Amino acid sequence: MDQANAKQNNKIKIVIPIYDDVTQLDFTGPHQFFTRVPESEVIVAAMGGGSISVSGLTFGKLADLASIESCDVLCVPGGIGCVAMIENQEFLDQIIRLAGTAKYVSSVCTGSIILGAAGLLRGKRAACHWTCRDMLSAFGAIPDDARVVRDGNVFTGGGVTAGIDFALTLITELVGSEAAQALQLSLEYAPEPPFDAGRPETAPANVLETVQARLQKTMPALRKRIERVAATQMSESTNAKLAK
Amino acid sequence: MDQANAKQNNKIKIVIPIYDDVTQLDFTGPHQFFTRVPESEVIVAAMGGGSISVSGLTFGKLADLASIESCDVLCVPGGIGCVAMIENQEFLDQIIRLAGTAKYVSSVCTGSIILGAAGLLRGKRAACHWTCRDMLSAFGAIPDDARVVRDGNVFTGGGVTAGIDFALTLITELVGSEAAQALQLSLEYAPEPPFDAGRPETAPANVLETVQARLQKTMPALRKRIERVAATQMSESTNAKLAK
Repeated sequence: MDQANAKQNNKIKIVIPIYDDVTQLDFTGPHQFFTRVPESEVIVAAMGGGSISVSGLTFGKLADLASIESCDVLCVPGGIGCVAMIENQEFLDQIIRLAGTAKYVSSVCTGSIILGAAGLLRGKRAACHWTCRDMLSAFGAIPDDARVVRDGNVFTGGGVTAGIDFALTLITELVGSEAAQALQLSLEYAPEPPFDAGRPETAPANVLETVQARLQKTMPALRKRIERVAATQMSESTNAKLAK
Repeated sequence: MDQANAKQNNKIKIVIPIYDDVTQLDFTGPHQFFTRVPESEVIVAAMGGGSISVSGLTFGKLADLASIESCDVLCVPGGIGCVAMIENQEFLDQIIRLAGTAKYVSSVCTGSIILGAAGLLRGKRAACHWTCRDMLSAFGAIPDDARVVRDGNVFTGGGVTAGIDFALTLITELVGSEAAQALQLSLEYAPEPPFDAGRPETAPANVLETVQARLQKTMPALRKRIERVAATQMSESTNAKLAK
């Protein structure tokens, strides 16, 4: 039994699959909280292990996703690379397999697009980065604009920094509110954003326009690719149902 | 001229020195924001380069701190390892040298203990993780309980997650409030902590007691080591003044 599969002392095993062009704060935020949960074991993994470099940070010594037998929590971060990953059936198969072993299936940001493409969000409410939230419905999910959404055993967080609120919410479920609050205090999470610009509904109009204009360069092509995966997946699922 | 020293297109060069037992979110939070600043160049460095592993994350391909000629922003993260680093004169010498080249000297969490030990906070107001904030006075600084503190060209953030508020504040100084707000929107920073337990003043009494009891195991010895460094540094400084 290798390190990734050692189930010691009933530790809470949390697996975070990462990939090229992941958004690092989507998982480093939750990771900081998860690793301080007493009796937790947090494994960051990628297809084939190795290392992933993103925006000048290199994450090394990653576990091989395929070698992880099971987990208690699967936590899938987002990032622009999620689009390539939902086109990668080998990756999706690992997500589906590990989700099948997990007590909790979860995501941060556009990680929910990956959960959707893995067929794990059908009929479920879910959060996502605001720029892609509506696309969840292509996978049969119900987009929810809350910062953290729970639907049964599926916990999803909104964009990037929502990962911290998500982590505290999931940790409350895992080990209770007192332990979660102790973590919040030790990581001094008493946010004071200098502006109220974190949501399209509250950002000044010119700021929203700037961000939308920037997205206009990349989003249409990415949305088409997501829609293509969703269409294939939903029709395959329909065919499978008809064949039964 | 190597990569670390290439000054291309007047980019804003931000250097983040890390070390063993750094708290990863202290710098991964700001890093996520800094790397999205247009025309920024963010370099994560360590003594000798190589890699730093902390809480199961390995940060590889680090620049060698000593090989970096200069920077616009020096941003020093904190973590329990800061105590060993203030006892390491070679490291402190690099901090002092780079701070001398920087337009802005900054820190997150107990990174301000390192700035203090480098003699960069004399007479300056500064933030720190709440558990160590009072210790800044041993280095001649004025502890400030604000989440982000600016005193001249020195920007300091409070504990761990304060790094995000700190980054947005510094980015506003660097590139203006519109660009900072665009970043806040694109990283969806509209925090909704599930509890109001992020500061000792607001945390429930039993939660504060739990955290303090845990700290009691390690803090007294660490405080003594910090005090020892401070005493040597302040007396050397006094001697130097008397000798003039």
